[in-house]
Order: sequence, then structure tokens, then C-alpha cells
Amino acid sequence: MIYLDYAGTTPPHEKVIHAITETLMLVPGNPSSIHPQGFAARKVLSELKEKIGTLIGAAKSSLVFTSSGTEANNMIIQGAYFNQPHLRFITTKTEHHSVLKTFEHIESLGADVVYLDVDAEGLVDLNAYQEALKTQTALVSVLYANNETGVIQPIETMITMAHQAGAKFHSDMVQMWMHQPVHIESLNLDYATMSAHKFSGPKGIGLAYIQDATSLKPHTYGGRQENNLRAGTENIPYVAGFLMALEISQQKRASQKTKVNACAAHLLRRLDEEEIAYTLNGPNLDHHRLNAILNLSILGTDAQDLRYYLNQNEVYLSLGSACDAQSVLPSHVLTAMMSDPARLESAIRISLGTSSTPQKMDRLVELIKAYINQ
Amino acid sequence: MIYLDYAGTTPPHEKVIHAITETLMLVPGNPSSIHPQGFAARKVLSELKEKIGTLIGAAKSSLVFTSSGTEANNMIIQGAYFNQPHLRFITTKTEHHSVLKTFEHIESLGADVVYLDVDAEGLVDLNAYQEALKTQTALVSVLYANNETGVIQPIETMITMAHQAGAKFHSDMVQMWMHQPVHIESLNLDYATMSAHKFSGPKGIGLAYIQDATSLKPHTYGGRQENNLRAGTENIPYVAGFLMALEISQQKRASQKTKVNACAAHLLRRLDEEEIAYTLNGPNLDHHRLNAILNLSILGTDAQDLRYYLNQNEVYLSLGSACDAQSVLPSHVLTAMMSDPARLESAIRISLGTSSTPQKMDRLVELIKAYINQ
Repeated sequence: MIYLDYAGTTPPHEKVIHAITETLMLVPGNPSSIHPQGFAARKVLSELKEKIGTLIGAAKSSLVFTSSGTEANNMIIQGAYFNQPHLRFITTKTEHHSVLKTFEHIESLGADVVYLDVDAEGLVDLNAYQEALKTQTALVSVLYANNETGVIQPIETMITMAHQAGAKFHSDMVQMWMHQPVHIESLNLDYATMSAHKFSGPKGIGLAYIQDATSLKPHTYGGRQENNLRAGTENIPYVAGFLMALEISQQKRASQKTKVNACAAHLLRRLDEEEIAYTLNGPNLDHHRLNAILNLSILGTDAQDLRYYLNQNEVYLSLGSACDAQSVLPSHVLTAMMSDPARLESAIRISLGTSSTPQKMDRLVELIKAYINQ
Repeated sequence: MIYLDYAGTTPPHEKVIHAITETLMLVPGNPSSIHPQGFAARKVLSELKEKIGTLIGAAKSSLVFTSSGTEANNMIIQGAYFNQPHLRFITTKTEHHSVLKTFEHIESLGADVVYLDVDAEGLVDLNAYQEALKTQTALVSVLYANNETGVIQPIETMITMAHQAGAKFHSDMVQMWMHQPVHIESLNLDYATMSAHKFSGPKGIGLAYIQDATSLKPHTYGGRQENNLRAGTENIPYVAGFLMALEISQQKRASQKTKVNACAAHLLRRLDEEEIAYTLNGPNLDHHRLNAILNLSILGTDAQDLRYYLNQNEVYLSLGSACDAQSVLPSHVLTAMMSDPARLESAIRISLGTSSTPQKMDRLVELIKAYINQ
């Protein structure tokens, strides 16, 4: 089996599984209970948060654990809307659906939402952004690295522009941690989103970085947990799994990046050598992108059919976001970047990770060639 | 250590921990992915839901897993409001905060919410309910068994009355499963809430039973998961833990109930024998209540101080809801039932479970006596 869907999910690392199991056994208490079993659980949670905060450059008090990156995005966007419903909201046309569909929801409630265009490489239009910020804005939300194309937006510039205009800035950075270190406070972010299962953690836990808890209304009501922002008994075993996954990916990141970059370059070189007609959707390798996420149009093919053929030959990949994998429409991310049906209909996503090797890229190219020639 | 806070949380059973660990190892896929690793995860999730549905009397398609009972309550109440914002909502003054605070939130958005009074035993006023239903109502939400007093509301009657008036009915039944079997479809409920950590499952997973998914707007946007109602990658290991906990509690319930009932009766008898002045807040044993949750006012004492004394002597209990344990205000549940400050200020909650024995009740009574006489 050749797994090329690391942007969809990563399998949990065995040390992550061990950390979860151990915490399930050793921390039976509810951290809200005011007796020693509760205090013990609260202490463990506090220590885990402290360590996680140190790794990602965030104060412990700014960390709110959720059940997914999607929930974190909803919490931040809905929370900002209910706090300041009459101000503007700005995002891009190429966000993950957990951001876009949440903005569409608040728009249906009356919010003023601006969806910024992107250029042919997927990079946001900064002039339009500057223009949009002229109306008093509550929140800007922009993906750091796009989950379908790997495009990295110029968020440092965008954060500065937002703050100059008095707006707060959120970045969904779920695809970043596995591939690039992130120090949230140095970036001067107001809000950020992470998801453990994108870096060998469990599925079922996300993280919302919220610099100022009073800037949001809660998404989930009913308890004082997580700075009064997210009621519900905390899932400490998965927080332990989150920390272990962070630590492992931190240790392995540099060596994995070298490997992934070599694989990506090898793949494109092999496609060229085999004279397979393709376009890399998004910037060239090593420019404003993660090389780990490659969106390729294999011209002349039907992506659904090619994906099926590759599946049959034990190569697993997706066309775009897993959260939208059952859709038959062309990706909203690609349609924001291009209009050529030949490229839209033939686009597949190859996302690389720990098990990727040049030999597996050779096998992929061999199969694509066989598919074209069949 | 004598643990008398089972209504706050229960430790996960070792078989539950094993089921979670095994699923973390064996099911690495994202159920939304359209390749065999995704299909395998989807199949496991579907089979788990089928088995859970059979145990609780619910169609597989009506089950939505959340990260807590609190999230399920928010999803159902907020979802009903955004679907029909102009109709009435009815609840009681003695709900868990995850219900009450959510109703207060939608009230702040403009909803018409009626909070029904309860009588001195904590039972809802059915005449006021009948009256409230005269205005077209979207949703009625009533706790099945109260988490602070054990009071069981007459929900069969209340469901019939709601349906006759064209309203849908939700019941938070998180305290029930450990102590009484529930068959959701036989009850004719429209929505129900469960939480695994109240019956030896993990903290971090709840269940929303939603008979008709189209009757709610989503609480979390961005993906097609869970009948389009709750975006976010599913936490399959905890669903496996949920099922295992359901099965174990199902098997043990009858014998545990006998034990818990004996403990409850023994405790009250010993208090009488020692001539300790107390009131049982709520109905008498075996009448409209779970005997597993006993709210007692130990007259003449200060509950916070007594709780602290018991803690120091390794008896762990709470004054009320764990989710509200850090509050210094008297419980909203008790203030809805009574106004006598002597009873309100001296109320403690004793909640019984697997480790409870008559000997431990003797020790509790001994400590209460020593505290009073000190």
C-alpha cells in the first residue's frame, strides 16, 4: 500500500496511543470536581497545557481544546460574530469548508462577509484585502497552508495589515505543524487552529488558540471549562496524545522535510521524464508552499477515474479535502484559481509524509503512465 | 478513599480502555476518505453505531456523536432555535447548565423561552406546562433524571402533551443509563442526550439522538459528517469505548441497582438512628427518583465546610453539578424547590455507584456525626 493522503489524516503514532492509554488509566477524575480526584485531573491538564504552550509559543491560558480543527474554526468565527455582529468579516475563497461554511452561516444571520479572490497560484489579492479592511472589521480568517494545494499565504503581512485596521486575525494552521514549526505569539496571531490527527495524533482533538477569551462569545454553553469558552468535561487522555504527537513531530520535522522535499522534486522530475502532461496547481516547489501537498492536473485524464485506478493498485490519495471527499463538484479551491475545465477535471492531490520515498513516487508515475496508455 | 461522586464522573472501565486502545491501533483511517483505509474506518463506525442503536432503541441513522453531553444539548437546542427562531421554547428551572445556559443564550438572541417551575419535591408543574404549550412551540427540553437530586420527571406524559401541541421533545438523559434502561424509540422522543463518562466510558464523547436531522440547523459547520449535522473528523476509538461502556453497564445494571438501593436505604436509616437532623431534598426513596443520587441537607452545617471535612477524611463528594462545582452560589436546582436558607446552605450530593457499600455509608455517617460534634 502506498499512502499519499497525509493531508487527509495521519495514523496515530504508537507513542501517542501509549500516552492516551496511560492517561485513561491514571487520570480517572473530572477536572471540574472539587475533591482530590478532580484536583489531580486538573493538575495533569494544566501541566499538559503548559508543555503544549511552550512548544507552539502560546500562553497556557490561551489554549482551548476542542474535538476537532473544524470545531475550533467554528468556535472562533461564530464566537467573533456573536460578539460583534455588526462589523465586517474577511476571509478568502480558498479556505477549508469548516471556515467557509461557518462564514456562510453567519452571513445567513446577517453578517457582512468579504470573500477575497486569489490569483492563479492561489495567493490572496492583497490590494482587495487592503480595500476590504477600510470598513471596520471584526475578524480576518486565512488558512496558513492550504489543505488542497499547499499554498502558503503571506500571513505575516496580512496580520500586520489587519492590526493596523483594528481587526483581529485568525489562521487555520492545521496543515503546518507537521512540516514547519509555528510560534504563535511571535506571529502576533489573535486566534489559531490546530488538529492533532494531521501530525500523528488522534482524531477527535483540535486546539483553538485564543489570545483574549473575552473577545468571543462561547460556541458551547453550560460550564466554566476552558476559560468559560467551551463547556463540557475535558478529554485529558487526548490532550496527552496531542502533546506526544507535537513532541514527536517536532523531533522528526527537519529530517522529514528533507525527505518530503526530495520526494516532491523526484515526482515532478519523473513526470517530466516520462513526458506526462501535467500542471502543478499552485506555486512552484519551494516557493510560497508546502512541498508536502501537491495538487496536480494530469491533463487528459478524469481525476475520479484515475483516483479509482490508483486505488485498485493500492495507491491511496484524495482529490481534495477529506471533509468534502464525497462531493462530485470540482474543488472550490481550484475554481478560485482557474477556470480551465481540463485542469479542474483532472486534478488529484498527492500529500506526502513519513512513509513517502522516491521509490513510491516511481511506482505512482508508472501507474499514471499505465493508466494513460491503457 | 470513599468515592461518592458517580454523578460527577465514573472512572473508565478497563475493558473500555482496551477497546479504545485497540481501535486507535487498528483503525487509522479517516471515515470521510474515499480510499480503502477510509472505507474501513467508515465500516467500523457504521457497525459500532448499529450496535449502540440496538442497545438504546434507536435507528443507526439517528445517532450523532459529540464530544460531550453538553455539546449534544447545545447542538439540539441551538439547532432547533436557528431552524425555527420565532416559535416558543420550553424547559424547566432545574435543568443542567448545559441546557439552561444555552436557552439563556438563544433568549439573548430573541427567543421566547419559558422556564417551568417545579414543586417542593422538584417535580415539574404540569398545569403551567399545559398553559405554556398553548403558544406554538418548537422544542421542549426536560432532564429525565436530575443530576443534583435524582428526581425523575414524568417525561412520558410530557412527551405526549408536547406532541399533541405539535412541539418536539428533547430529554437530557445522561444520568439514566447507568441506573435504568432506556429505549429511546419506545419513549417516542425526538431528541435525547447521553454521555459516556457517566457510565464507565471515557470523558470526551457524548451522543445526540436526533430522530429527524432536517429539524435542526448544524451547530458546527464545514463537513458532511454525522448526517450533515456535526462537521469534524469522527473519534472512532471513543465510539468503541462508548459501546463497550454501554454493554458493561447493561450487564451490570440490575445487580448494581439492588446494591445502590440497599446503600441508599441503609444511609438514611443510619442517619435516623444517629438522630442526625437532615432532609432528603426531592421525593422519598423509590418514588419518582433515582436512589443513586441523594441530595441531603445536613441541618445546622455549612455544606462547603462539611464537604471539606469529608474530603480531608478521604470521602469524595460534590455539592451539585461538577460543571458548576466552583460556584459559591446555592444550586439553582435547589432554589427552584425551596427557599429555606438552612436547607440550601447545608445541602450535599451523595451519588452512588459500583464501589458503594453499606460499610462505606456507615463511615460517612460516622464522619458526619464527628463533624457535627466537633
